Amino acid sequence: MPHIKLDEKLPGIRGLFAFRPETALPMSELVEVLLHTPGSLSMAERELIATYVSSQNDCFYCQSSHGAIAAIHLDGNEDLVRQVKQGFESADISAKLKALLAIAGKVQQSGKNVTAEDVERARQEGATDLEIHDTVLIAAVFCMCNRYVDGLATWAPQDADTYRQRAAAVARDGYVQAMQAYLKTAHQGK
Amino acid sequence: MPHIKLDEKLPGIRGLFAFRPETALPMSELVEVLLHTPGSLSMAERELIATYVSSQNDCFYCQSSHGAIAAIHLDGNEDLVRQVKQGFESADISAKLKALLAIAGKVQQSGKNVTAEDVERARQEGATDLEIHDTVLIAAVFCMCNRYVDGLATWAPQDADTYRQRAAAVARDGYVQAMQAYLKTAHQGK
Repeated sequence: MPHIKLDEKLPGIRGLFAFRPETALPMSELVEVLLHTPGSLSMAERELIATYVSSQNDCFYCQSSHGAIAAIHLDGNEDLVRQVKQGFESADISAKLKALLAIAGKVQQSGKNVTAEDVERARQEGATDLEIHDTVLIAAVFCMCNRYVDGLATWAPQDADTYRQRAAAVARDGYVQAMQAYLKTAHQGK
Repeated sequence: MPHIKLDEKLPGIRGLFAFRPETALPMSELVEVLLHTPGSLSMAERELIATYVSSQNDCFYCQSSHGAIAAIHLDGNEDLVRQVKQGFESADISAKLKALLAIAGKVQQSGKNVTAEDVERARQEGATDLEIHDTVLIAAVFCMCNRYVDGLATWAPQDADTYRQRAAAVARDGYVQAMQAYLKTAHQGK
């Protein structure tokens, strides 16, 4: 049961966004810039970083949500998402993405754990300053989201199909539009 | 030395904001809502939560910046800021703020560490759902900011006076306006 009174129909961060729309908007805008605007890292790569960090933080709702979105961007390859969560160094992904995931994994523990060698490895694999920056910030953002979702003990659907369905709308419309759409529905339901 | 090329004049999160203004705006707006808009928790109380979490994450730049802002809202009582960082349970603060800091400390470790008993203690001391929500989100936001600042190895001024001076502008104008002001200066300096 959540630690505060939330709309029972809305799981995870959705219930929190409906509870506090003033913070929902900048949080959604931040995630939109990092995960859903055109960039040199693909949306699949960026969602995999978010999924991996959420998995390391053991946040079921976030890793399921972003894992499902990553799979859509990967043409349905849910197995690759599992590979990344279970051990990205042996997953079927680029050497550059492995180096960025290694940085993200350090950030998940503590920002101070990122070493010059971690960054040099990413650079050797072709990562730019912007890509290194965004990797660190995506990892940091999900350390926030995971703590927000679990720190208030929100509930999470257990079936993969629910996440697949919700992921389709986010992958298509982005985070801000998806958030505004379900907040509108939640409001009308009151 | 920072892991990526940043404006050398701008320390901590300021250099990162200048590097990536697209993410600087929603991050500043989020912190503005949580720390600098009118609310039932005073600005001093909210800045103390931010300072305490940053101190637990050992982020020198963030704990110095927000500690200095908290002190301004406390009419210059820097000793109280030190008390909270060193052991808030014996600090000269309200029982309610102690209960909220205990929740924030759990969030700093992991969202999953927050218990129903932690929340019940806060409620017994008069905390509302919104105050509990905002405490968890402030703690989560600073787990993000601390990782962002340290994960990219930004530099931090070592003298307290620099933080006092910068804090005065933020305490007066808020986070968005302060951010826009120094990004404008950074841009003009190029």
